[in-house]
Amino acid sequence: MTVAQSQIDEALAAADAQLDAGLERLFALMRIPSISTDPAHHPDCVRAAEYLRDDLAGLGFETEIVAADSVPNSVPSVIARDADRPEFSRRALFYGHYDVQPVDPLELWRHPPFEPQILTSETGEKVIHGRGASDDKGQVMTFIEAVRAWKSVGGGAPLGVTLLLEGEEEAGGESLGPIMDARRELLTADLALVCDTGMWGARPAITASLRGLVGGAITIRAASRDLHSGGYGAAARNPIHVLAQILADLRDAQGAVALPGFYDGVAETPPEIRAAWDALGVDDAAFLGPVGLSEPAGETGRSALEQIWARPTAEVNGISGGYAGPGFKTVIPAEAQAKVSFRLVGDQNPEAVWSAFQAHVRARTPADCVVEFETAPGAPAVSSPYDSVDIRRASAALEAEWGAPTAVIGGGGSIPAVGEMKERLGLSALMIGFAHDSDQIHSPNEKYDLESFRKGVRSWVRVLAALA
Amino acid sequence: MTVAQSQIDEALAAADAQLDAGLERLFALMRIPSISTDPAHHPDCVRAAEYLRDDLAGLGFETEIVAADSVPNSVPSVIARDADRPEFSRRALFYGHYDVQPVDPLELWRHPPFEPQILTSETGEKVIHGRGASDDKGQVMTFIEAVRAWKSVGGGAPLGVTLLLEGEEEAGGESLGPIMDARRELLTADLALVCDTGMWGARPAITASLRGLVGGAITIRAASRDLHSGGYGAAARNPIHVLAQILADLRDAQGAVALPGFYDGVAETPPEIRAAWDALGVDDAAFLGPVGLSEPAGETGRSALEQIWARPTAEVNGISGGYAGPGFKTVIPAEAQAKVSFRLVGDQNPEAVWSAFQAHVRARTPADCVVEFETAPGAPAVSSPYDSVDIRRASAALEAEWGAPTAVIGGGGSIPAVGEMKERLGLSALMIGFAHDSDQIHSPNEKYDLESFRKGVRSWVRVLAALA
Repeated sequence: MTVAQSQIDEALAAADAQLDAGLERLFALMRIPSISTDPAHHPDCVRAAEYLRDDLAGLGFETEIVAADSVPNSVPSVIARDADRPEFSRRALFYGHYDVQPVDPLELWRHPPFEPQILTSETGEKVIHGRGASDDKGQVMTFIEAVRAWKSVGGGAPLGVTLLLEGEEEAGGESLGPIMDARRELLTADLALVCDTGMWGARPAITASLRGLVGGAITIRAASRDLHSGGYGAAARNPIHVLAQILADLRDAQGAVALPGFYDGVAETPPEIRAAWDALGVDDAAFLGPVGLSEPAGETGRSALEQIWARPTAEVNGISGGYAGPGFKTVIPAEAQAKVSFRLVGDQNPEAVWSAFQAHVRARTPADCVVEFETAPGAPAVSSPYDSVDIRRASAALEAEWGAPTAVIGGGGSIPAVGEMKERLGLSALMIGFAHDSDQIHSPNEKYDLESFRKGVRSWVRVLAALA
Repeated sequence: MTVAQSQIDEALAAADAQLDAGLERLFALMRIPSISTDPAHHPDCVRAAEYLRDDLAGLGFETEIVAADSVPNSVPSVIARDADRPEFSRRALFYGHYDVQPVDPLELWRHPPFEPQILTSETGEKVIHGRGASDDKGQVMTFIEAVRAWKSVGGGAPLGVTLLLEGEEEAGGESLGPIMDARRELLTADLALVCDTGMWGARPAITASLRGLVGGAITIRAASRDLHSGGYGAAARNPIHVLAQILADLRDAQGAVALPGFYDGVAETPPEIRAAWDALGVDDAAFLGPVGLSEPAGETGRSALEQIWARPTAEVNGISGGYAGPGFKTVIPAEAQAKVSFRLVGDQNPEAVWSAFQAHVRARTPADCVVEFETAPGAPAVSSPYDSVDIRRASAALEAEWGAPTAVIGGGGSIPAVGEMKERLGLSALMIGFAHDSDQIHSPNEKYDLESFRKGVRSWVRVLAALA
């Protein structure tokens, strides 16, 4: 359906009118310490789910709280679906998560993490302070408040809306897939919307791709006990050396990942997308400078943005072995360990990449050594065309709200739910979010700009109309 | 002077007669918890030094307790020198140490570590149980008791004897060099004797060489803070990768150390020494099997014994960086660290080796990284000819006592004092000891075979005569 501008203006006015009440609703949600990684907070997670269920039921949604039968201590998801109406041409499935990160170290918080309040930042902006303000309760509530605004002026959003609000995102939980499978009918939609990403500086942004992820730990064991390097050094196999060789050989001299077949399924970035990224005005120095770096370390000849948004990588996330305390101990350790992960793009297959890595490791494991693998759950990359009709329409809607052109960007990280929606529900996601790099998500003093919340709600009012 | 066999027999009989009293003297020394690494035990170290001083003064030695003025909290050495006599053709400087290792974990000791007693081992041998039994109080007392035996039958040992008993060996202290410099005249001798090494199984052994040591820590720093591998992976320099490359490049495919000039000063082992080692009857499998290994990991084509006794090595003793806890954290750490040490042989120069390593590291430190070095004190290798007159004479004396041929072996570790005596006093050391691999030095339940003590005393009675 086409939505008249007057209707949009009415909904925007309603959104502005309900701002303070909307903040109170967000604060009520933020006061619930729904830390999914801590079993002691499982009842709080359920309480947060119930809060959202009740709020959405009040808006006329059919609601359900669903846990995965097959997952022990499954933290439930909230599913809410409004009734079909004849004028709907399509239905959107909105994904967000209500669980939050732990708050340690607590002493670094300027205010208690679960007592949300409006503060004025060092740079003068008003911010919502507290755990979950940005990741992801504040972002989720921008969408719900937009739906509420539409409801208050015209009986509901201009397209069908289903919400799937997860409670295990921060815990890397395994419930979401089984929940999707169990409620596939209920979750049927035409497109997915996600609010768990960020702005591009002062510009609104649509994240069109995310990298996949696969990884795990390898442990190399040699002698049956730690040895003295005087009594055994040279003759005894040193597992740290073995590990160093394995890791050094992971990349070639041009910064490319050296596993056979690793780049299968990796396409070159189209010139127009590269051009669009160049036009974002963030060169390598501007991107890397804030973290004390200057040169992209990956594949030679590619910009930092391209390396992060469109190229895969192999990273060692941790290494340990032998004596790491103060002073020195001349030990040859019995074992050494590394944690390794691969960020994937395009059609790279996580299982195939991990198998190639295992073969790489085994080929470099000499006599007298054994290797043990621990594999973490993997996910393929997700992406949508940069110039789809939906992206063009959503871009225009966002530009109208923010007064600045929408940046269509890539994302270097992973949101497992986006892959799950693609794989299990066949839905491509439009990722729109209003977070900032400065939001300190996962850290003490998490915040969400009040402007992100206010204009975030208004943005969804416009985007829902544009996609209808 | 030549010593008549009848005199030796008399001294041996005296040694046997004083065995129980000698054990009591050893136990009295072992009851003093002279743990040099713990400042709280500094007074105990002084007490142990005073005990030895008094004992040696009672044998007619001129004695002195000497600390290093330049070293804060210097743990003193005991110096004792008997008077010159006209019949002396030469003088021996005996080195040992009276300090001991800490005793943690205390709960693993079957009896309190500083309440020495005679126990019967699982294999039926009588053993002296307690901290310092083997390392090095028991070994030191074999020498002092031998001197006492000679004193009781003929007025003293058949050659001049000076003792230098250190109190900082286990602490890697810096006092010994300055003490040697300050008392160089008093320490003048013709050869050095050391009792801090072991037997070769059931055979007596003379250790003719020790490897030197140089090492330190390197820290590679990249970004100004830990980064998320989603947001930065590929473009941000990963210091663990940098470190892995540095360490992997330390050895070549043939197991040799790949630093330029590293093998300067390393001579080939003479064929007759290789043949002697082969004749010891310990092949690679026999040497490495007990620690779960089978193949020597160092330079291709060299036996395990040759690799450890006559070849230098580069070893990584510890590595750390990023997340090493349970589960996974997709971090690109800001820094990574390794502890690296080199065992040296022949005339390898510790400073030159460390400089070559620093150059190796700097050449592999890319843009955006800085490297920081921490250098541990180094020492060159020490060695004496395997077929000197002294070794031949001492070998024969030991064979007479033990009824088995003396093994002339190398040592893969380091005894810093031996290098100091060579460098500051110009003395080559004859290293004779009666410890066993099973003595659990540095561990709970340290022991010294009663047979090592009894026959050790008798061995020194014979060796002193042989060297006179």
